[in-house]
Amino acid sequence: MAQNIYDDDEFFAAYSGLRRSVLGLDGAPEWPTLCSMLPPMQGCRVVDLGCGFGWFCRWAAEAGAATVLGIDLSSNMLARAAADTCDDRISYQCADIDVVELPEAAFDLAYSSLALHYLVDLPRFMATVGRAVVAGGAFVFSIEHPVYTAPANPRYVTDDAGNESWVLDHYSIESSRTTDWLAPGVVKQHRTITTYISCLQRAGFTLEHFVEWAPTRQQVVDNPEWTIELDRPQFLLISGRRT
Amino acid sequence: MAQNIYDDDEFFAAYSGLRRSVLGLDGAPEWPTLCSMLPPMQGCRVVDLGCGFGWFCRWAAEAGAATVLGIDLSSNMLARAAADTCDDRISYQCADIDVVELPEAAFDLAYSSLALHYLVDLPRFMATVGRAVVAGGAFVFSIEHPVYTAPANPRYVTDDAGNESWVLDHYSIESSRTTDWLAPGVVKQHRTITTYISCLQRAGFTLEHFVEWAPTRQQVVDNPEWTIELDRPQFLLISGRRT
Repeated sequence: MAQNIYDDDEFFAAYSGLRRSVLGLDGAPEWPTLCSMLPPMQGCRVVDLGCGFGWFCRWAAEAGAATVLGIDLSSNMLARAAADTCDDRISYQCADIDVVELPEAAFDLAYSSLALHYLVDLPRFMATVGRAVVAGGAFVFSIEHPVYTAPANPRYVTDDAGNESWVLDHYSIESSRTTDWLAPGVVKQHRTITTYISCLQRAGFTLEHFVEWAPTRQQVVDNPEWTIELDRPQFLLISGRRT
Repeated sequence: MAQNIYDDDEFFAAYSGLRRSVLGLDGAPEWPTLCSMLPPMQGCRVVDLGCGFGWFCRWAAEAGAATVLGIDLSSNMLARAAADTCDDRISYQCADIDVVELPEAAFDLAYSSLALHYLVDLPRFMATVGRAVVAGGAFVFSIEHPVYTAPANPRYVTDDAGNESWVLDHYSIESSRTTDWLAPGVVKQHRTITTYISCLQRAGFTLEHFVEWAPTRQQVVDNPEWTIELDRPQFLLISGRRT
């Protein structure tokens, strides 16, 4: 089972204040790229795995999805998602996606934003998604990039000339990592890109898109503090087509 | 055009002394993995792009390939390749794979070991390979992993507790990098994984294998100095199937 850190009061309060929590999809710099990887939404049956506040669920319905099921472990987040949603095509389910079962061949699109790096059992999850998506359907997901989750003590270091570098270590050692992001003791599962891709393929998907998100030139101009993001990708966006 | 560093006397002398230059494929720790990604060689028409001393060309012929064409920019390397080869199924061509043209639909397997990170024009090269490989054929290649080529000043740093980390910076900035590997002024082209995969796909290949090479537990036991290789992958091995 994944850790339910989003129902930790300290974490939830901090998370609720993040730009992406306040502004939704428009507050997530990787969203335009992730959005460009999605299939046409008209008539789509969608499942959002780790739906959080339901921003994507509502976007998908507005974009024409036939049905949208949002699943999340956090009752805190789902309470706000339900309060913010008024559309009977959208339903929410409180469940741990690390163990949840899904109906077979029931979805045209499975979507997951920044949730899979919390999963303990990725192969089981991928196989479940592979059975739930119809042939020709898509699985589009984002994760924290493995070079971001790898280090034992994630940080930048500065050399004598003032140049900053990200530290990278333990990349090939797959196991949990405990960090103090927003609250102490947040547990993530580090896996290599190799593992993400091979799990996706074994679940019956062909790789379609693979994007290591970095800010554009314009985004760096608008947000100079993002320059450091060019040193190492923070997000990895992947899509697969079910064969 | 790629830099012809292999015809630099100092570089060539140093390169010739490397384990993989003396022992061939058996001296390359990533070879067993790369080998496992190859199609059956019986009757295969093979092109080896950046063939060096011809170790793979000879292996392919011994494994049953019908014809093997090895291409390399370095006359130094091809001279030794020709001297070590006695098999009329194998031919060598001195050419820069950055600009070389290949016959269309003439090969069942294109192979390239640790050469593509020298190429200036990757999209042109990939498109050339895409036209040269028949439908159903394969392109199997290894490169230095982009986290290895990215840093402005590649090195490990040690924290106060003695823990070593690789430095990672400039990952998303694609351009040449000049390092002092074996000789001063070796020019490599850094590209993200995103670029390698999208170029491969645009050339008509579906991603088949994606392996960030790391030593196995047994290899670390046999070669304790490789422990540090677990901190960041040095090699990336990729195969695509021509659709």
